[in-house]
Amino acid sequence: MPLPSVWLQELTWEEVSDYLKTETIILFPVGSTEQHGPAGPLGLDSYAAISIAEDAAKQADVLVTPPMWFGDSPHHLDFPGTISLRTETLVAVTRDLIHSLARNGFRKFVIINGHKGTNLAALTTACRNVHQYELPEVLLALVDPLFLAKGIAGIKESVEHHAGELEISHLWYKYPHLLRSGKLPQTAVDLEPVLSPFVHKDLFGGGKDSIEIFWNSKEQRGFAPTGSFSDSSKASVEKGRRYHDYMVNNLVNFIRWLRTYQGPVGGR
Amino acid sequence: MPLPSVWLQELTWEEVSDYLKTETIILFPVGSTEQHGPAGPLGLDSYAAISIAEDAAKQADVLVTPPMWFGDSPHHLDFPGTISLRTETLVAVTRDLIHSLARNGFRKFVIINGHKGTNLAALTTACRNVHQYELPEVLLALVDPLFLAKGIAGIKESVEHHAGELEISHLWYKYPHLLRSGKLPQTAVDLEPVLSPFVHKDLFGGGKDSIEIFWNSKEQRGFAPTGSFSDSSKASVEKGRRYHDYMVNNLVNFIRWLRTYQGPVGGR
Amino acid sequence: MPLPSVWLQELTWEEVSDYLKTETIILFPVGSTEQHGPAGPLGLDSYAAISIAEDAAKQADVLVTPPMWFGDSPHHLDFPGTISLRTETLVAVTRDLIHSLARNGFRKFVIINGHKGTNLAALTTACRNVHQYELPEVLLALVDPLFLAKGIAGIKESVEHHAGELEISHLWYKYPHLLRSGKLPQTAVDLEPVLSPFVHKDLFGGGKDSIEIFWNSKEQRGFAPTGSFSDSSKASVEKGRRYHDYMVNNLVNFIRWLRTYQGPVGGR
Amino acid sequence: MPLPSVWLQELTWEEVSDYLKTETIILFPVGSTEQHGPAGPLGLDSYAAISIAEDAAKQADVLVTPPMWFGDSPHHLDFPGTISLRTETLVAVTRDLIHSLARNGFRKFVIINGHKGTNLAALTTACRNVHQYELPEVLLALVDPLFLAKGIAGIKESVEHHAGELEISHLWYKYPHLLRSGKLPQTAVDLEPVLSPFVHKDLFGGGKDSIEIFWNSKEQRGFAPTGSFSDSSKASVEKGRRYHDYMVNNLVNFIRWLRTYQGPVGGR
Amino acid sequence: MPLPSVWLQELTWEEVSDYLKTETIILFPVGSTEQHGPAGPLGLDSYAAISIAEDAAKQADVLVTPPMWFGDSPHHLDFPGTISLRTETLVAVTRDLIHSLARNGFRKFVIINGHKGTNLAALTTACRNVHQYELPEVLLALVDPLFLAKGIAGIKESVEHHAGELEISHLWYKYPHLLRSGKLPQTAVDLEPVLSPFVHKDLFGGGKDSIEIFWNSKEQRGFAPTGSFSDSSKASVEKGRRYHDYMVNNLVNFIRWLRTYQGPVGGR
Amino acid sequence: MPLPSVWLQELTWEEVSDYLKTETIILFPVGSTEQHGPAGPLGLDSYAAISIAEDAAKQADVLVTPPMWFGDSPHHLDFPGTISLRTETLVAVTRDLIHSLARNGFRKFVIINGHKGTNLAALTTACRNVHQYELPEVLLALVDPLFLAKGIAGIKESVEHHAGELEISHLWYKYPHLLRSGKLPQTAVDLEPVLSPFVHKDLFGGGKDSIEIFWNSKEQRGFAPTGSFSDSSKASVEKGRRYHDYMVNNLVNFIRWLRTYQGPVGGR
Repeated sequence: MPLPSVWLQELTWEEVSDYLKTETIILFPVGSTEQHGPAGPLGLDSYAAISIAEDAAKQADVLVTPPMWFGDSPHHLDFPGTISLRTETLVAVTRDLIHSLARNGFRKFVIINGHKGTNLAALTTACRNVHQYELPEVLLALVDPLFLAKGIAGIKESVEHHAGELEISHLWYKYPHLLRSGKLPQTAVDLEPVLSPFVHKDLFGGGKDSIEIFWNSKEQRGFAPTGSFSDSSKASVEKGRRYHDYMVNNLVNFIRWLRTYQGPVGGR
Repeated sequence: MPLPSVWLQELTWEEVSDYLKTETIILFPVGSTEQHGPAGPLGLDSYAAISIAEDAAKQADVLVTPPMWFGDSPHHLDFPGTISLRTETLVAVTRDLIHSLARNGFRKFVIINGHKGTNLAALTTACRNVHQYELPEVLLALVDPLFLAKGIAGIKESVEHHAGELEISHLWYKYPHLLRSGKLPQTAVDLEPVLSPFVHKDLFGGGKDSIEIFWNSKEQRGFAPTGSFSDSSKASVEKGRRYHDYMVNNLVNFIRWLRTYQGPVGGR
Repeated sequence: MPLPSVWLQELTWEEVSDYLKTETIILFPVGSTEQHGPAGPLGLDSYAAISIAEDAAKQADVLVTPPMWFGDSPHHLDFPGTISLRTETLVAVTRDLIHSLARNGFRKFVIINGHKGTNLAALTTACRNVHQYELPEVLLALVDPLFLAKGIAGIKESVEHHAGELEISHLWYKYPHLLRSGKLPQTAVDLEPVLSPFVHKDLFGGGKDSIEIFWNSKEQRGFAPTGSFSDSSKASVEKGRRYHDYMVNNLVNFIRWLRTYQGPVGGR
Repeated sequence: MPLPSVWLQELTWEEVSDYLKTETIILFPVGSTEQHGPAGPLGLDSYAAISIAEDAAKQADVLVTPPMWFGDSPHHLDFPGTISLRTETLVAVTRDLIHSLARNGFRKFVIINGHKGTNLAALTTACRNVHQYELPEVLLALVDPLFLAKGIAGIKESVEHHAGELEISHLWYKYPHLLRSGKLPQTAVDLEPVLSPFVHKDLFGGGKDSIEIFWNSKEQRGFAPTGSFSDSSKASVEKGRRYHDYMVNNLVNFIRWLRTYQGPVGGR
Repeated sequence: MPLPSVWLQELTWEEVSDYLKTETIILFPVGSTEQHGPAGPLGLDSYAAISIAEDAAKQADVLVTPPMWFGDSPHHLDFPGTISLRTETLVAVTRDLIHSLARNGFRKFVIINGHKGTNLAALTTACRNVHQYELPEVLLALVDPLFLAKGIAGIKESVEHHAGELEISHLWYKYPHLLRSGKLPQTAVDLEPVLSPFVHKDLFGGGKDSIEIFWNSKEQRGFAPTGSFSDSSKASVEKGRRYHDYMVNNLVNFIRWLRTYQGPVGGR
Repeated sequence: MPLPSVWLQELTWEEVSDYLKTETIILFPVGSTEQHGPAGPLGLDSYAAISIAEDAAKQADVLVTPPMWFGDSPHHLDFPGTISLRTETLVAVTRDLIHSLARNGFRKFVIINGHKGTNLAALTTACRNVHQYELPEVLLALVDPLFLAKGIAGIKESVEHHAGELEISHLWYKYPHLLRSGKLPQTAVDLEPVLSPFVHKDLFGGGKDSIEIFWNSKEQRGFAPTGSFSDSSKASVEKGRRYHDYMVNNLVNFIRWLRTYQGPVGGR
């Protein structure tokens, strides 16, 4: 791709117009601005989405929209600096972005959620309803590290929940100056008394029977006063590199597959 | 419990008032009215939620609200008889129900989703935001067969997606007169060409890397013309019994635990 | 009709598809879950809608959707067990249901309101706006006992307001096990000092000049502490039978007329 | 009342402040801008609300807000000049007005609907919900000619529906220069074939069993091409005078009663 | 124009239908009901819009809709008598009015805002979005004294902010009986300490660097206890006449130009 | 300030907590992603907001939130790459951000709008209503180059409208690699035939009487096919430097003033 950048905001509309002559894929990185414990910066989830999107875009020669720095983070609101959109606001931002770009020819959107899990209610709602009720001709894919990185999660040595070993490693690898590595928590919150024996302890984990109990930001401040749920002392730049590259590689493969994809019923 | 019924709608307000003197738990069964292939009735998901809720309530001596028969089922809308609420409508119904009952003393809600997965965006949105922004003193738990029945899913012999072996077995066990058992599909839709190599094929499955592609009802009618995605020929009353009892047992254990639960930060 | 049930939720989509080849009428029963005094169960209005709809459907060979158990009942919210939707939520549920079923060919909806009067603001709003702005080709009819049963109301011997003689009789006839017949109130609330000399005292009554004053649930608990407004001691199974049969008969006649109806401007 | 006007818009805020020292009642006239056949002006309903409100206010010494000229009139939209608000818009206007005036001490609102019947869904929704959920201390009354004038309706000689004998007489009496009296329709639309044998033919009428069928503006233009549904040839200034005075008299009596009213539970 | 009135509400639909045969322009006056200090009536902004619209309409032979008496006036809400719509409510009213009239052929709307500045967020939102997303064929123009009267503002002798010299003069000229001319404030509020050295002091003023600080009604009552921000002692009937005539003249010229205007891209 | 960054996203929540011990000001840069002609990148407005906010924050030692890259840009939607939020979406994002940060102690928000003018309807709506109805204790200021840079606008040599001399110069100074300086338009669109003789031609201009006509994206593509409205051939790095520094200087002075500001009624 001869375009001077993969980032839409750095291009002129004429350059985007040229891109659309041969390609209709675009990536949309969505993060959050929420506390990530004593060691992680507030933008951690956004940096995750940005770095995955940017590296995949460069390898696969596709465009990326400017990032959405704000996500759905209500349970972190009692920690200063957290910015949480209402679920319906994030639905609206996503919907408006898709409509805007679809108008001139983008047809395949890959939404990269850096805020593992919690943004999914909003992003799923936006994608499902836009595709069903508004723009059936537009194809929408939703990517989340929890599902994209299943195959690599085994490299971690601890239970991964909020501000866990893998996401801290990821930041360390890509944005080392933003990690306060001297402050990595060495213990995890015991979630069973907090959220029942049916709690889903490891976000990357599987098989156990679980029931979700909802908690709010005041409660979270109570049971996780440092902000972190996890022992991230086993985090490392090398784990971050493997985790990042694995996700980027999966995403690049998906984008290449998507290039010729004609939708769920193909050319039928 | 000396109450004449576990169903709220069969009681007078004075009887409910008595119940609230010693207990504040209530179950809310949410289903759907959506096609379930040539053999399953449109109400299958609602019957699942109703039967799990009713049997658990009887064993654990708690109340159940009237069922919500309509869920979030957009991708089934091209099959006659399907009724789908907009996501925001289901959020609103759930929110209004919680507010109504919380007003007079119900404090612990267990939402039983019979419509595996797809209702979760709406139900999660409702629960998370009500607990964070509106009624922090009300505890909300969300139950879904996909997570409640992980430990029993191994009894099935086929890949389980929409109208799959386990949910068909469940209906067969509890509502045998509603199954057209002579019409059980014997083949499954191959979802890889439809939704990419990153498709999540088995709803009860785990570990594989996945990316979600959204499809709409017109496309679904195209790639799954019978309405079923799954081979349910291995369904049986016995599997339905084991699946049902396993979920009810888990749920009863959870309700008993919930009885003395004082929230994520307990009495602290 | 060779269909195995009049209830949509008990049919498969293929059976509904067959039905639509020769008929496009469907009934939608809407009730409430609200207190009905010391003798009536919380689901009374829903049972009214369900029983009228089911019996009319069987006689007229048409389908019925699953019932909506929740209505617009704000003034009952101070009585435990009452569940009230916001007006706009009930509008949305009704609108979504009509859109869903219209998509595959239902063209004539008969909404059966069991919650006399109070649901009408929401149901009227939904019907009027869907028919004007969204689906002009879909015909919508709204049925309410207050208007359907004018001609039989004379059989009652007392002033009928909330939890009155006729609606209690109706429940008694159709669901005798759900009435606490030993607890029927023998006195009525005097509404003149509560709601002005211009109050409309008898819901089935006519001619008097009236002005509506709105009251809320806290006030209602104050002026009607048992929950009932009415003396229902004259209620009887026989009156319930006559009331029910009269309404079902009217409804069946209407449905038969509707079968060949081509809309307000007919074939013009 | 020493105030220079009953109309709020003609007073300064200091004069209103003085008024609030001894009185908290205010009237809110709501009309419509919708076609009223070949003889009636588009503002007819608004003029009805304005004239009733103004004359009652002068007799009872209370204030009136500026009028709301736009109502909920979707079925008239195919006649040029009709302006219809969405139902939710009229709810919002009413809600905002009540909140604004309640903030500084108005406690008793009498809403005068000049647009018989059709505005009631919106106005009822606003009043019921504001009083239940938002401002329980504010008392709300809703007045409509259909209910306020039951006792005088017998003076008319024809069936009264849209643009009928009484409302035309009313305009003629109060705003004679706005009636095109030479164009009064002499025939009525036969509504039975249009809206079923269960149609409610006379808006002031009672007793007959009825079911509502909704029609839209395109259909109305078809079945009532002049815009009028009614034979208004029997209209007269004298009938208008009697109809107007009867309503004003009722309203004045109500306002006087309201002055000492302390709400549904009084001083209890 | 042979029509009996420029006011839509005084015409029948058939007369409007005739008008539409040769003209598609209509004016929509939007005001407010908000305090205007000790001398000005609450309706001042509405009277401004009404008088400009009516006089321009008469000179240019175009129609005017009924006025909207309520605007977006939150910062005046602590002064009795003020009625403020939520911004989204005013957007909705404007949108609904445009849709209604566009349906039968009005194509050019001139919105006359009498409430200088503050209504513009709502009116701009309505116009911009209706023209972009809903009715691109409808042309919308927005008129505000702050921009329409730039060339005449030099006649005033004092700084003009809320209830300032020019708007008071305007009322005095057109509605002399509504001004309490003996109560005109002789001093202005010094806004620099209230709203920073970057405050925009004179609403008709230009060139100075400014930053907007938002204030609410409680604060306004604090820093401007009479309700007026301005010294209006220099107001006069003659200035009102010149100000009014200047605006009407501009507006008439604009309407005449609009008559042959074919939109931003003309006949291209 | 000993904080490692002025950007919130680069800090941990504990660092933000420290900041709040002595300061409660935060800047929020809001831009757009919209076409800026053949020479300007799509992110131009966002870069303007980001650079002004960052430089002022560094000089005044205050924090900046992550930028909002998407604004209200409907009229640019026919140019590929433009992303426009609905007005209400931008209102919601702004409102949610303020609520989130106010929760833990931020009290003074300075919103930096880089998208001259067009975002103001949304940002004004958010600020005015949050301060009036939701968070009266939070002070909100709104900065826009059109008003902040009045005193320096005289340096430009051409009429400034979309993609004009000053905003192009600004980008050139701060982000020289993002300007396609070889493609600067040398002619401007003549807006009089497009938007009437009452058009407001120069966004920085003043005094002329004007009336706003709304145009949409399709029309804009027609009358301004390159996307630019302006002759920006006189743009230069030096003008950009002066324009930028002037705004930053004003903003720093404002922030220093704001530091001790106690609201419109001060400590009274």
